[in-house]
Amino acid sequence: MKFNEFLNHLSNYEPGKDIEVIAKEYGVKEVIKLASNENPFGTPPKAIECLRQNANKAHLYPDDSMIELKSTLAQKYKVQNENIIIGAGSDQVIEFAIHAKLNSKNAFLQAGVTFAMYEIYAKQCGAKCYKTQSITHDLNEFKKLYEAHKDEIKLIFLCLPNNPLGECLDASEVTKFIKGVDEDCLVVIDAAYNEFASFKDSKKHLEPCELIKEFDNVLYLGTFSKLYGLGGLRIGYGIANANIINAFYKLRAPFNVSNLALKAAVAAIDDDEFTKKTLENNFSQMQLYKEFAKKHNIKIIDSYTNFITYFFDEKNSTDLSEKLLKKGIIIRNLKSYGLNAIRITIGTSYENEKFFTEFDKILR
Amino acid sequence: MKFNEFLNHLSNYEPGKDIEVIAKEYGVKEVIKLASNENPFGTPPKAIECLRQNANKAHLYPDDSMIELKSTLAQKYKVQNENIIIGAGSDQVIEFAIHAKLNSKNAFLQAGVTFAMYEIYAKQCGAKCYKTQSITHDLNEFKKLYEAHKDEIKLIFLCLPNNPLGECLDASEVTKFIKGVDEDCLVVIDAAYNEFASFKDSKKHLEPCELIKEFDNVLYLGTFSKLYGLGGLRIGYGIANANIINAFYKLRAPFNVSNLALKAAVAAIDDDEFTKKTLENNFSQMQLYKEFAKKHNIKIIDSYTNFITYFFDEKNSTDLSEKLLKKGIIIRNLKSYGLNAIRITIGTSYENEKFFTEFDKILR
Repeated sequence: MKFNEFLNHLSNYEPGKDIEVIAKEYGVKEVIKLASNENPFGTPPKAIECLRQNANKAHLYPDDSMIELKSTLAQKYKVQNENIIIGAGSDQVIEFAIHAKLNSKNAFLQAGVTFAMYEIYAKQCGAKCYKTQSITHDLNEFKKLYEAHKDEIKLIFLCLPNNPLGECLDASEVTKFIKGVDEDCLVVIDAAYNEFASFKDSKKHLEPCELIKEFDNVLYLGTFSKLYGLGGLRIGYGIANANIINAFYKLRAPFNVSNLALKAAVAAIDDDEFTKKTLENNFSQMQLYKEFAKKHNIKIIDSYTNFITYFFDEKNSTDLSEKLLKKGIIIRNLKSYGLNAIRITIGTSYENEKFFTEFDKILR
Repeated sequence: MKFNEFLNHLSNYEPGKDIEVIAKEYGVKEVIKLASNENPFGTPPKAIECLRQNANKAHLYPDDSMIELKSTLAQKYKVQNENIIIGAGSDQVIEFAIHAKLNSKNAFLQAGVTFAMYEIYAKQCGAKCYKTQSITHDLNEFKKLYEAHKDEIKLIFLCLPNNPLGECLDASEVTKFIKGVDEDCLVVIDAAYNEFASFKDSKKHLEPCELIKEFDNVLYLGTFSKLYGLGGLRIGYGIANANIINAFYKLRAPFNVSNLALKAAVAAIDDDEFTKKTLENNFSQMQLYKEFAKKHNIKIIDSYTNFITYFFDEKNSTDLSEKLLKKGIIIRNLKSYGLNAIRITIGTSYENEKFFTEFDKILR
């Protein structure tokens, strides 16, 4: 059977291995997963309670107006319901943006190394990808590339802070940059980890209501997968001018998010104790990762996220990842990003100590 | 801001109203929802238990290999894991099929009245829609239309049994029909309600392993939203030749289904007592709907599903729906399908009695 031609240019996604599968394969008893930037404290207690209470409603289709979560987000961010779209993870809102703006005749712009899914989704539309030479976000380079290919570039991704490297631009630099972007070019601000950056340094804080008030061409993306501890439920959101949201709605399938995810997200927003604990633990533990790096002469980029990236000169990241795996520790090897580096999620104190102990032995 | 041209031909989906919203709007205490063909017995007890036990794992990304559910389905249907793709509802697998096969230069074929999402999704690709004049599945007409537009038609939808009308073709007729279809044309068998049809009459039973053994161009779709009582969790599946599944995998975003849905689906498959009760209740209660129709001279089509469709000559379906709504009873008005008819989900004995009492008064 023949399929649409564009499928020939797409490759099959290779899923990562599950904790249980790895434990079995490597014969380790305890597996510590510091690979996917999940919340080390688990699911927020208020969300757990909500899920247990609503487990007997799994047969009912979701309220497709999503009014409860939208109103909660609208209040939190001081925007209107019409400025919000809920996605099955912020990933799905990225897909909406790409399908609404990109096609085989135009292009998008992104940092040299950033969230891999931008390119993967954009390939489905056959759009051209411009990347900065710098692996981190260098706005001068963004500007130069944009000016040189202005007619072509219809979408710009800014990942703030950047996954998988951790650096973050100041909000004021971002605003200044967007002023130079044509109104017909959509600027997607992926703020999946922005709560972490804002906590560390208020200069990194991005406020969606200010962004969409000033710019008709900005899309702010948030997620419940990181700080809010709901990665398994697949729920995130986009905030933008109502025209953009309306366009995305045309691409959205009804009931794109589960009813339990919608309810748990509302509960998670309300769990201040959980998010506070998460943020405080993250940066106190991050300090230990910095010290470990210094001690072992490992290069790092200052991280504004819930992970840290270790760069190596002589040691090989694939080799190191494999050795950690044998000890039951899963981290993210960044070889597929063209880097000799690993990305480690900041875990609980217990998990991090275990990492330090084992990695110390491996590095000797 | 300008968007891709194809968006201009798409309209925004208007979400239906939630039970709570309706209760408030109409000032009714009790709302009975017989509109979305949800399971009247709720969520399967084994799935509820599973959801409660796993509520504290909502922070972990789903196992994207989906090995547990795939293996369970593979065993149930006697197919291989490579023949299965899991979607966020079988809806998402319909989307995969459409995006893999259809484009603005080809066409698809469907019954005169059938599941509305086929056309809605296909519009995104700009494909032409051929429909039979008959509102139900008339295979002679399907054959004629197919023969007349063979070069164009690259996808055929068979909804067995048909939503929203309820009729169902015999499996033997279906097999005979597919033999006449070119190998490059994908035949999608939407079996969302087939467990109900099989229970009522074994001649309607479709066995995916036999279908995919005989045909390289058949896609069988199943869902957990109806018999298995998990509509809120958004989970369904497609079974086909591995080549088709591989093509769909290229269109699938990672983590397209939540981890709780994956686990609950496995538990639901195991809950035989629940599914048995559902099927038995459905057809004993269906009998009462037939008797009610006969008594009131309402036309029906014999239904092989968990709903029944009432056709009216003089009374107006919109008017009747509105009157029922005022009594707190939500059914599906089929006006948007071009029919003067309503579709009623077979509920519990209590819900159905309430419907009969109120509808009897309305019809007088």
